[in-house]
Amino acid sequence: MSTTVGVIGGGQLARMLIPAAVNLGIDLRVLAEADGMSAGLAASMVGDYRDFDTVLAFAETVDVITFDHEHVPQSVLRELVARGVTVRPGPEALVFAQDKIEMRRRLGELGLPVPDWAAVENPTELAAFIAEHGGRAVVKTPRGGYDGKGVRVVTHKHEVDDWFTALAEDANGGALLVEEHVPYTRELAQLVARRPSGQVAVWPVVETVQRDGVCAEVIAPAPLSSGRLAAVAADIATRVAEGIGVCGVMAVELFQTTDERLLINELAMRPHNSGHWSIEGSTTSQFEQHLRAVLDLPLGATTPRDEWSVMVNILGGPAEGTLFDRYPAAFAAHPSAKVHNYGKDPRIGRKVGHVTVGGADLDDVAYEARATAAIFQD
Amino acid sequence: MSTTVGVIGGGQLARMLIPAAVNLGIDLRVLAEADGMSAGLAASMVGDYRDFDTVLAFAETVDVITFDHEHVPQSVLRELVARGVTVRPGPEALVFAQDKIEMRRRLGELGLPVPDWAAVENPTELAAFIAEHGGRAVVKTPRGGYDGKGVRVVTHKHEVDDWFTALAEDANGGALLVEEHVPYTRELAQLVARRPSGQVAVWPVVETVQRDGVCAEVIAPAPLSSGRLAAVAADIATRVAEGIGVCGVMAVELFQTTDERLLINELAMRPHNSGHWSIEGSTTSQFEQHLRAVLDLPLGATTPRDEWSVMVNILGGPAEGTLFDRYPAAFAAHPSAKVHNYGKDPRIGRKVGHVTVGGADLDDVAYEARATAAIFQD
Repeated sequence: MSTTVGVIGGGQLARMLIPAAVNLGIDLRVLAEADGMSAGLAASMVGDYRDFDTVLAFAETVDVITFDHEHVPQSVLRELVARGVTVRPGPEALVFAQDKIEMRRRLGELGLPVPDWAAVENPTELAAFIAEHGGRAVVKTPRGGYDGKGVRVVTHKHEVDDWFTALAEDANGGALLVEEHVPYTRELAQLVARRPSGQVAVWPVVETVQRDGVCAEVIAPAPLSSGRLAAVAADIATRVAEGIGVCGVMAVELFQTTDERLLINELAMRPHNSGHWSIEGSTTSQFEQHLRAVLDLPLGATTPRDEWSVMVNILGGPAEGTLFDRYPAAFAAHPSAKVHNYGKDPRIGRKVGHVTVGGADLDDVAYEARATAAIFQD
Repeated sequence: MSTTVGVIGGGQLARMLIPAAVNLGIDLRVLAEADGMSAGLAASMVGDYRDFDTVLAFAETVDVITFDHEHVPQSVLRELVARGVTVRPGPEALVFAQDKIEMRRRLGELGLPVPDWAAVENPTELAAFIAEHGGRAVVKTPRGGYDGKGVRVVTHKHEVDDWFTALAEDANGGALLVEEHVPYTRELAQLVARRPSGQVAVWPVVETVQRDGVCAEVIAPAPLSSGRLAAVAADIATRVAEGIGVCGVMAVELFQTTDERLLINELAMRPHNSGHWSIEGSTTSQFEQHLRAVLDLPLGATTPRDEWSVMVNILGGPAEGTLFDRYPAAFAAHPSAKVHNYGKDPRIGRKVGHVTVGGADLDDVAYEARATAAIFQD
């Protein structure tokens, strides 16, 4: 009998777990949303992850349940645990990646550095927060946002009336999250893995470059991050992981403020775009590490394999045809670039693949990664 | 439509093509010998590769046919080509990996360095060869041998009478291959890839350590192989690949003789155990390169990623239980070792996995790889 890991969700994160599972002889099974998903090769079941009976039937075929995304309802997760299913990360940790207000509250309790924030239930409360924070604030829907969706920078209390209306109609009800608009010089991400028995491993902190709210590029390690900055980022992520009892890989997105503080922006409780460089760039990739962690196996070394790694997302893909059509040009010009193709149809703005290049000179590495990715985009 | 590569044979070589295919978005399909094979995840059909109709039905589902092993009969391969199927490597190249007498004959025609050899049809001819070569010779069955099977060192003409008898009963008939017993200091392997349009790429020559005729360990690059030795090995493999029109990855096994010549021992026309180190140790692994080559895509860079890589096979596995049972001990003691588990049941002498370690100090790297592999064997 081989050990079986079940992944809920069939996107590219589940897909990128497949190579790690194949290497380690782990039987990876995926509950996919539909046929033909990115992780379709490992899909053992197709069904709705919001339906308890579907998820339970899937869980009964595996040793441990983990996730491609954070959208499985708490009610489903808690009932699975009640039935004796091993769920990693568990619902009591995952809630902090599902609900940004819960996340802010818990991080505050743990004494971790976050932007000023409030839960606001109406335009009047929002107006008060804006007034107290220099006439500008960031409003976020607490649930369901990703890649910049569900985030607005506002200066007036009525700019999110549509969200207040939606909240009023939502059975969950509740509030919107409002945060101070932090003046930052750049965004960083600190990847961390924790296994149930307590071991924690961190990778070097990376710089993430966003365009239109979507991660465009990751530089590992973050330039000018030696010494204290790297230590502070690693310490923050370790305290988050231990404080909320994460099992598996977690990405902590950080703002580096103009006054050189690190503030926690978001948490992702699964392998994350900011860690894709680790497939080639680290002795243990985030995907292998996630499998080790959810199986409570000793974690692998996170040593970087190159002085610099740069990962560039392929967003959208070619206007006509497929990524594959561009392989002859890309491979001929860039024989050292590692191209990852998620097997998804090209669509504007969609993450359909990424390119990683490693080496000793950051300018060269970044040029090569960007130039390769550009061949796949019109 | 994604590009589809069909692999005949479901062993660990087909299995190790899966991660490369997933990364590149290639739809890999395997014609497996049985259910539950090592490459079972990608098995789209189960059947007998010696049966033409089975292989044709499989071929009709893919863009190109390639191989996990060299055992598909020439008659099947030639009929596939006649029907318009793209087969890489093609039968006219593959024959030289299938029949060692054909191989010796062709390499001789190409002027490549091989041991003295003859095709012998009876003990009398064998006796003459032995007498001419210092009273000792190596006899090989021309077809079907692997991992030391079908190879005997003999001093007397009657030591292979069973093979002569079997030949007489074999419809293919023919002769045994006899070779001089080459005095060599070590065995090397030179991996090369060639695409149909002609591009060739070589990895650094490696040293292979055999035990009981089976590859036990590979050191990449071969110690003391800088300069001329590496150039000669690369040149030999390139001339073989071009001379016989290989498409895909080929391993050329070499003897380094006591008088410092390199002689060709065997050819393997597929990814090969001597190239497993390249999964972590090279910018492009032999598995990714094989996919690029059979799809006639530009080949990837073969730059080593570490000063030294050592690959140690896990032979047999634990006497009780599975490789997985040993993960806690192995991972805790060796967090930098990369463990590959082929998902095969442990059995004495069977290749069930391998371990690769890379780094700057060969002694450390070899120690770590051997110590990790030892945890998986009783």
